[in-house]
Amino acid sequence: MAFSDAIIAIVITLLVLDLRPPEAEPGGLLTALLEEWPTYLAYAASYVYLAVIWLNHKAAFTRIEEMDRGLQWSNLGILATLALVPWPTAVIAETARTGNLADERVAVALYAIVGALLCLSWLVFFSHLARHPDLTKEEVDDSYFARERPRAIIGVVLYLAAGIAGVLIHPLVASVVFLLVPTFFAFTSHGFDQGVPLLRFGRTNDDRESGKRSGDG
Amino acid sequence: MAFSDAIIAIVITLLVLDLRPPEAEPGGLLTALLEEWPTYLAYAASYVYLAVIWLNHKAAFTRIEEMDRGLQWSNLGILATLALVPWPTAVIAETARTGNLADERVAVALYAIVGALLCLSWLVFFSHLARHPDLTKEEVDDSYFARERPRAIIGVVLYLAAGIAGVLIHPLVASVVFLLVPTFFAFTSHGFDQGVPLLRFGRTNDDRESGKRSGDG
Amino acid sequence: MAFSDAIIAIVITLLVLDLRPPEAEPGGLLTALLEEWPTYLAYAASYVYLAVIWLNHKAAFTRIEEMDRGLQWSNLGILATLALVPWPTAVIAETARTGNLADERVAVALYAIVGALLCLSWLVFFSHLARHPDLTKEEVDDSYFARERPRAIIGVVLYLAAGIAGVLIHPLVASVVFLLVPTFFAFTSHGFDQGVPLLRFGRTNDDRESGKRSGDG
Amino acid sequence: MAFSDAIIAIVITLLVLDLRPPEAEPGGLLTALLEEWPTYLAYAASYVYLAVIWLNHKAAFTRIEEMDRGLQWSNLGILATLALVPWPTAVIAETARTGNLADERVAVALYAIVGALLCLSWLVFFSHLARHPDLTKEEVDDSYFARERPRAIIGVVLYLAAGIAGVLIHPLVASVVFLLVPTFFAFTSHGFDQGVPLLRFGRTNDDRESGKRSGDG
Repeated sequence: MAFSDAIIAIVITLLVLDLRPPEAEPGGLLTALLEEWPTYLAYAASYVYLAVIWLNHKAAFTRIEEMDRGLQWSNLGILATLALVPWPTAVIAETARTGNLADERVAVALYAIVGALLCLSWLVFFSHLARHPDLTKEEVDDSYFARERPRAIIGVVLYLAAGIAGVLIHPLVASVVFLLVPTFFAFTSHGFDQGVPLLRFGRTNDDRESGKRSGDG
Repeated sequence: MAFSDAIIAIVITLLVLDLRPPEAEPGGLLTALLEEWPTYLAYAASYVYLAVIWLNHKAAFTRIEEMDRGLQWSNLGILATLALVPWPTAVIAETARTGNLADERVAVALYAIVGALLCLSWLVFFSHLARHPDLTKEEVDDSYFARERPRAIIGVVLYLAAGIAGVLIHPLVASVVFLLVPTFFAFTSHGFDQGVPLLRFGRTNDDRESGKRSGDG
Repeated sequence: MAFSDAIIAIVITLLVLDLRPPEAEPGGLLTALLEEWPTYLAYAASYVYLAVIWLNHKAAFTRIEEMDRGLQWSNLGILATLALVPWPTAVIAETARTGNLADERVAVALYAIVGALLCLSWLVFFSHLARHPDLTKEEVDDSYFARERPRAIIGVVLYLAAGIAGVLIHPLVASVVFLLVPTFFAFTSHGFDQGVPLLRFGRTNDDRESGKRSGDG
Repeated sequence: MAFSDAIIAIVITLLVLDLRPPEAEPGGLLTALLEEWPTYLAYAASYVYLAVIWLNHKAAFTRIEEMDRGLQWSNLGILATLALVPWPTAVIAETARTGNLADERVAVALYAIVGALLCLSWLVFFSHLARHPDLTKEEVDDSYFARERPRAIIGVVLYLAAGIAGVLIHPLVASVVFLLVPTFFAFTSHGFDQGVPLLRFGRTNDDRESGKRSGDG
């Protein structure tokens, strides 16, 4: 978890590297700053998306007892694809700035591919856990991760559909879907965790009495 | 905490990336280095500010027992806005170098907005904890986080006032306030923690006897 | 472990910094993106390689009880050389783009040297552990790390041979070996760990009863 | 410790960012790579220096039980100055490449100032611990940190003397001292820790029996 946490923290923070003092004529700073709006929007959207992924990742790992090699590699697959997210985001921000429609179609198609790959890596991850219930904690229902799979499949389909619509109809259609998908994941994740506290620091009274210790990653 | 710690550590370290060997004619290194003084001042000021935020963050989390989804998101709000700090800092350093007064007004206004957003995110965080005393540790007074809110409100007001003064009067007025606000937060934080040790490694004798274990994040 | 984990996480994430919106004429984004293919391949290959190193590193440290100064420095040697990996990878990607055969020979030779140094640092690490069985956990066979040494030696030989073949025959020969070596390390590592779970979060029932606590780094 | 570890890990890894595929004419890669030798030397020297600092930092913190605000700020002082190290290192590497003697004097003076500031921050850190023996672990001798102070004072003096010699005599004199000081700290640190294992993972048999738990940061 320390490793995954570090990677997500680094990726989320590298987003800020795109925010630089703009090149501007003396006196032209305000205009130059305002023209950078696609970068600000891209920062906000990527940050929220990566935050949602982190919360989902954390929610999954609070239910995992052990990791085998297959789970390690499927987790590394999630980390590899989420680390890609800032790249198509920056490409979309760049094309929003230059405003060429053909480039914008390419940019949303690229984003859709990366988004679909990310959801695919979650699908592999959930499927591995569904097939190996011995890796999850005792108190977790054996069908829990099997029931997580449809969310990942919906993600793959949504991203691919958005990409196709972005190329055939208009890039804006795709962009709207890209902003909505993380919201979908945020809300469905909340629906699945049944009010279990997400993180717990130190020990509660109950823990002290029973000697349990929550795996707080 | 590992995730928050990692993000603050990365943001604080990325500040150094602005310190590069300057472009200079052969023999002109000394002049070039001295001309970079606004960057050095910006490095020092941002470092101290982020260090104060980290200490306040740590002080808050030593009192938190559990995190729910609302606290997660308000914490992510703090992390998102503190990650922005190096950006307006670099913009101010850049305008200090070029010396255009109109640009300097824009730069301090930008810094004021980011500073106010950061204090606003702390206000949301403290308010959530004040409304959910079940998230804090038993030994923490239920009104503790309610009493932290005025500090955040003062921060929002100070940043907005400094920004307005910087635009209407002179950017220097704003810069002085920007340097003083972290000092205010550093000292008031000290006043609130009533001599409780900030961090504790391993176990003390007392812990060993009573079986308690401090949540050392 | 936190320190090693952080370094590997940072190195693996810095790879993505090479993925940037390409410089392109309006309408030329697709061509420009497709021309970047050596960077994508280099990203994938370096990511997999660093992931394999991380898993091997983790597998070694689950068997280590204590660290002395010699082990600290040999671990720092591994971290220093693995941090170099993205550099020759970027050089190879760059020469694949420009397509000069003499440069490609130099690039694969550079990669071979870094790869051999990395395997050499593992050899030093394994040899230190083989000579100091008191540093490993009780349940680990005393000959375990001695038996890890041949893998490191094979790595040194393979990288040097690939470098020489790349210079004398053709750079492509070297590139193929570079892609195969991590696969070799991934599979032989799997063969050595005898089904022991790689990571364990929280406590299992057995732990609770016997009072043991796995060092989950 | 997680925060300090993360900062040192990031600083040590950012060093590699200076290693990039060099700008070169087709066929000129080998020459271009060889001309970068000052960067390689700077990478190696900075890496070893930061590794020594990390080991010293770790050795100090294994003896610390609690942190008060003064210790927090003096630790933040160490982190702030060590994060600066890559900057004068890059400036020296840059002047070694261009070869202007006046610039080289400036570069070694800059390095000497940063080095002296770093040792000064250690002096403040050790002095605080010497004045507050209640912050250290019971088993640590009360005079331990008082006896660490001379090492820091010697460091300040050595860096200032090297800087002056570099400006008045020749930059090379300073560079040699810069390479030797970390060696001095590495060896004297070893002399001070009296064979105590540096890190310990999990629990040993003895721990299990006596109920002690080493603070493994």
